[in-house]
Amino acid sequence: MPGYRLTIAYDGTDFHGWQKQEPPDAPPLRTVQAVVEHAIRTVVREPVLLSGASRTDSGVHAEGQVGFFRSTLDLPPERMIRAINSRLPADVLVRAILPERDDFDPVSEAIEKHYRYRLVHSISRGAHRPLFDRNITAAIAYPLDAAPMHRAARDFVGTHDFASCTRLHHGREHTVRTVTACTVRLPDPGDPCRIDIDVCGGGFLYNMVRIIAGTLIEVGRGAREPTDIPQMLAMKDRRAAGPTAPPEGLCLMSIRYGGSAHAENPACIG
Amino acid sequence: MPGYRLTIAYDGTDFHGWQKQEPPDAPPLRTVQAVVEHAIRTVVREPVLLSGASRTDSGVHAEGQVGFFRSTLDLPPERMIRAINSRLPADVLVRAILPERDDFDPVSEAIEKHYRYRLVHSISRGAHRPLFDRNITAAIAYPLDAAPMHRAARDFVGTHDFASCTRLHHGREHTVRTVTACTVRLPDPGDPCRIDIDVCGGGFLYNMVRIIAGTLIEVGRGAREPTDIPQMLAMKDRRAAGPTAPPEGLCLMSIRYGGSAHAENPACIG
Repeated sequence: MPGYRLTIAYDGTDFHGWQKQEPPDAPPLRTVQAVVEHAIRTVVREPVLLSGASRTDSGVHAEGQVGFFRSTLDLPPERMIRAINSRLPADVLVRAILPERDDFDPVSEAIEKHYRYRLVHSISRGAHRPLFDRNITAAIAYPLDAAPMHRAARDFVGTHDFASCTRLHHGREHTVRTVTACTVRLPDPGDPCRIDIDVCGGGFLYNMVRIIAGTLIEVGRGAREPTDIPQMLAMKDRRAAGPTAPPEGLCLMSIRYGGSAHAENPACIG
Repeated sequence: MPGYRLTIAYDGTDFHGWQKQEPPDAPPLRTVQAVVEHAIRTVVREPVLLSGASRTDSGVHAEGQVGFFRSTLDLPPERMIRAINSRLPADVLVRAILPERDDFDPVSEAIEKHYRYRLVHSISRGAHRPLFDRNITAAIAYPLDAAPMHRAARDFVGTHDFASCTRLHHGREHTVRTVTACTVRLPDPGDPCRIDIDVCGGGFLYNMVRIIAGTLIEVGRGAREPTDIPQMLAMKDRRAAGPTAPPEGLCLMSIRYGGSAHAENPACIG
């Protein structure tokens, strides 16, 4: 049965995250998985199951989520993408479709994921609040200093126990993960109040990128020393890290697979 | 009485244009003028009248609309901007406030306005539909060729009778206007399906920029010769021009005044 690998982009603002949620006593929630799966079904005219590489949270965005489905319908990818996109709402879009092995698993075969956290700071000082990109940028009221944030970020890189950087009762047995890159930069030379935090790694715990961002924001406002990260990680305690940064700043940029061209932002591949 | 000049940015998607509209038999419409004027009144605690340089249509955006009001309250501009912005909704923002003469008229004193029309074409072919910028970009189904559009654009420059480029029964006695710049360019080297049309001029007729854009789109799809513009203008007939392009692609970028620093995009000042 032909397999199809999809690169999916979405504005997560009006979605309850990626994963299908069908409460027994209420209507199904609007999720990306449900909406895209429904569009695929109307194209292939048979039941399909769309799996996804990453269960992004409510309000989190994607440029390069990866999905996979099988169908008895053998359609050229360029016709398949056109048919699916014509059935999708304005806030979600299939950017690419590739033929794929029918036993492909987008979760276990992912080699590296790249997340970006976008923020604008010093909002309360004046006129820097995000406007046209307000859905995909977190607004921080107070000023941040990017230099100590950049210093602190490098201590997240490596293989560590990230138990401090996930929510309590996360249900995962192992909390050791490998971060391959973690950088803080000013994306717009004309706007010193914009900061992008890029985090790449083989896999992430629940809320891990948003807690890394929240901890770096504490460093940027001077509430935490830039050399504090190793000790924070060593405590293996959620309370040692900063708060979970709000979802609207987070975007799943790309996912790399073996021999794949799905690394859409090679600059961040560690 | 102190005067204040404001640079105002807004996402026009959810506004019924700039100008206050208070139908006698219905609730007032949500317009930019009404929303910003209301925020100013709650700051200065007295009646104010906010005038604006340009009556942008429903759905049209602005980076650099210019507004003006007088108040007995003499507040430093940096405190005024902070107070007003803290009372504005997410889709409108005051970017700058300057002290101004109390008899300033933002309409008659404007020297030059810069509009940008943003579009993405070839939507029906695949995955190029605008996503995160869908509010501020027009989506054109068919492919466009930018080269003949660029050729045609230069024939709009100059002082012409633009009667062909405004709606019938426009109510203006004089339809001669001066366009100082009109260019077609690809803003993103990585995305050949994006086109920006920049138009600058001393003043514009109703719908004029959107009709210029709609005419250039006809040239881009091959439905009109690139050398057709002078004859189209000479006909002084609305039916000789192309259709009015949709509002979401249009943005008022900046307005230039004598000796002012409000020219936010000097690249387009003719």
